[in-house]
Amino acid sequence: MTISAETRVDLMRFWSTIERSAQIGVGRPGGLSRLTLGDADRDVRNQFVAWCREAGLGVEIDTMGNIFGRRAGQDDTLPPVMIGSHLDTQINGGRFDGIAGVLAGLEVVRTLNDAGHTTRRPIAIVDWTNEEGARFSPPMVASGCFVGRYETAWCHDLIADDGARFGDELERIGYKGDIPCKAGEIDAYFELHIEQGPILDAEGREVGVVTGGYPSYGMRVRFTGETAHTGPTPMDLRHNALIAGARFLTAVDDIGWEFAILDGKATGSRLAAWPNKPGTLSETAECVADVRHPDPATARVMAEKMRRAASEAAAKAGCALQVEDEWFWGGDIFDPELIGLIRSEAVRQNCNWRDIQSQAGHDAYHLAMHCPSAMIFTPCKNGITHNNKEDCDPESFRAGLNMLLHAVVNRADR
Amino acid sequence: MTISAETRVDLMRFWSTIERSAQIGVGRPGGLSRLTLGDADRDVRNQFVAWCREAGLGVEIDTMGNIFGRRAGQDDTLPPVMIGSHLDTQINGGRFDGIAGVLAGLEVVRTLNDAGHTTRRPIAIVDWTNEEGARFSPPMVASGCFVGRYETAWCHDLIADDGARFGDELERIGYKGDIPCKAGEIDAYFELHIEQGPILDAEGREVGVVTGGYPSYGMRVRFTGETAHTGPTPMDLRHNALIAGARFLTAVDDIGWEFAILDGKATGSRLAAWPNKPGTLSETAECVADVRHPDPATARVMAEKMRRAASEAAAKAGCALQVEDEWFWGGDIFDPELIGLIRSEAVRQNCNWRDIQSQAGHDAYHLAMHCPSAMIFTPCKNGITHNNKEDCDPESFRAGLNMLLHAVVNRADR
Repeated sequence: MTISAETRVDLMRFWSTIERSAQIGVGRPGGLSRLTLGDADRDVRNQFVAWCREAGLGVEIDTMGNIFGRRAGQDDTLPPVMIGSHLDTQINGGRFDGIAGVLAGLEVVRTLNDAGHTTRRPIAIVDWTNEEGARFSPPMVASGCFVGRYETAWCHDLIADDGARFGDELERIGYKGDIPCKAGEIDAYFELHIEQGPILDAEGREVGVVTGGYPSYGMRVRFTGETAHTGPTPMDLRHNALIAGARFLTAVDDIGWEFAILDGKATGSRLAAWPNKPGTLSETAECVADVRHPDPATARVMAEKMRRAASEAAAKAGCALQVEDEWFWGGDIFDPELIGLIRSEAVRQNCNWRDIQSQAGHDAYHLAMHCPSAMIFTPCKNGITHNNKEDCDPESFRAGLNMLLHAVVNRADR
Repeated sequence: MTISAETRVDLMRFWSTIERSAQIGVGRPGGLSRLTLGDADRDVRNQFVAWCREAGLGVEIDTMGNIFGRRAGQDDTLPPVMIGSHLDTQINGGRFDGIAGVLAGLEVVRTLNDAGHTTRRPIAIVDWTNEEGARFSPPMVASGCFVGRYETAWCHDLIADDGARFGDELERIGYKGDIPCKAGEIDAYFELHIEQGPILDAEGREVGVVTGGYPSYGMRVRFTGETAHTGPTPMDLRHNALIAGARFLTAVDDIGWEFAILDGKATGSRLAAWPNKPGTLSETAECVADVRHPDPATARVMAEKMRRAASEAAAKAGCALQVEDEWFWGGDIFDPELIGLIRSEAVRQNCNWRDIQSQAGHDAYHLAMHCPSAMIFTPCKNGITHNNKEDCDPESFRAGLNMLLHAVVNRADR
């Protein structure tokens, strides 16, 4: 038996896995709070592994806790086709962000099983550890490690705000695997994800073919000043790192407004000062900020303004500035051939689709550094995400799942 | 035997108690990190109680952990003269802030003992719990409770950032006393304190007679927005409480600079956002800010600007604003008769003195709500405080201690 051109996924079977996942790490009403490497993350991993085994997949876990469910191909020596995303959530997260992509892979495999279809190449479905970065920074760290951007030992030494060490938590929940976290040859990587923006929903589209990502520049900086009394210390003798941080994030927000008319965004997402107490000026402040714009040249301008804002904030507040990390992502990173394949499926299946750029970071950005990669976006209501009000219904996944199925089979049978 | 006009304290005996205190809760080089109700606070309290007992004082501890060392008067039914300050420090605190005032009281009592002088009125020396507010907010909470500004039960329920409850910590360190925290009649309250500003040191003065405090307005506000993705969420749909907080503190700092020329100060001292993580806009941000100016009318203008800044920051960031607390302190709160008495001693002892206003909050501000109160300031090097570099030498206390001794005796023998 084989997959035919008319084969479709079992939408309600997929939905039942979404609903089961939504019982693990329940957050605010309708949402999830399933921080990476916590107990709920362990529980959902256990459920995912059980589903993989039920589907006849070979389960492998690497030293970063990435879980791979492997389905053998007719020629198992060929590089696999991979489908992945993440099962962890933000602290006030939704039920779909990342989760839909992992369970889409599971549904593809189950559909292949139903059809008795063995693809020529093996297929692997993946849950990437800590995509969100909501507990351990940076986000997408395990897919980054997989493609060689980060060292495993460095990742294991990451410390959360709650004091926990990444490697210790991996071990505690039983997901520190033996396989080195290092990508071998991969034929193609697919990731289905909710859009996390309002465009598909607003336009009534069933699906988006992701052509790339908004060029995004981010930085983590540390301002260092000196503790002193809030009262008598004259303004010009102050070195209040909290104020340096506040000035920096205010300036970043101003940059966002300046470029908003052509869809630019700038975000201050973190300010952690110390001691951060009434009565004393703060000695240190760590800030995270980023800028995003669809036009690469404009994004570069915004990034330069962000860097200047950090220097100016430090100078105004009499603090030293240390840039602890800088990053860039986005651009035309996805594979034209895979994009074309997904577009063809959208046309063949008569979906209401459009090309779209991602504005969020995804594990696919890391995979694209290593192998041909592409993404499929499905609509989410009003574009709300990273919030318990994130909402989708089963129908919103139908087109995306079926396009994913056939794109994967097409590629895996090459 | 009695105290004569020429009696002087034993400066090096006083200094030895400062040095002993500096061994308890050692912080950064030269400094202390003796957060209220921690183990080090317990240890220094034990030392203080031992010193009180050695000096023949009756020790009483109230339900807020305030420690009173009582020296009987000839007529023990008369309201006492009280000398107090605090033994807790900032997390990166110095060896003198508060401590000098408590140990000054001890030295006065020891000097009276040496002279065999029993004053007409009783004398009490006091260590006030949690002056600094570096662990539990608000600061000066136990002296505030003592004079009826706060309820004891409310204080006991205060929660620190480390999750500890005030009442539980009091019990844990064994300093939850049985005596109700409620001021009876008090004849006079004296507090000696390092200036915590640069004026006396810069002018080469031995001592400052505190006439009052800079009028100071403060507020604790909470901005409430909504979590959302840092990427796709358009600028005009954002409700990032972190940005509301950053804008507020930036505006407060601007107010400080605007009024700096006539010695105004404005401080953002705390911004605690949640979730405060890369990848998500923050739902809440708690901020603490204050303004201070020697001129009461100007201080009111600054306070009005601070309030407006909070509203504007909330509006710009699309967040709700809740004012959780507002306070005022300072002004001409100290007792003219006590101020006159201290000035007379400065003249009689031929000290190089000046009148000065306090720019910091002190327990004496609370006591002044209840009884005639006054403060004596001693110089500290370059005005540095709330920092391990806070520095004084024994000589810097000589004039202040001897003025305190004679002012207390004068008052207690009335």
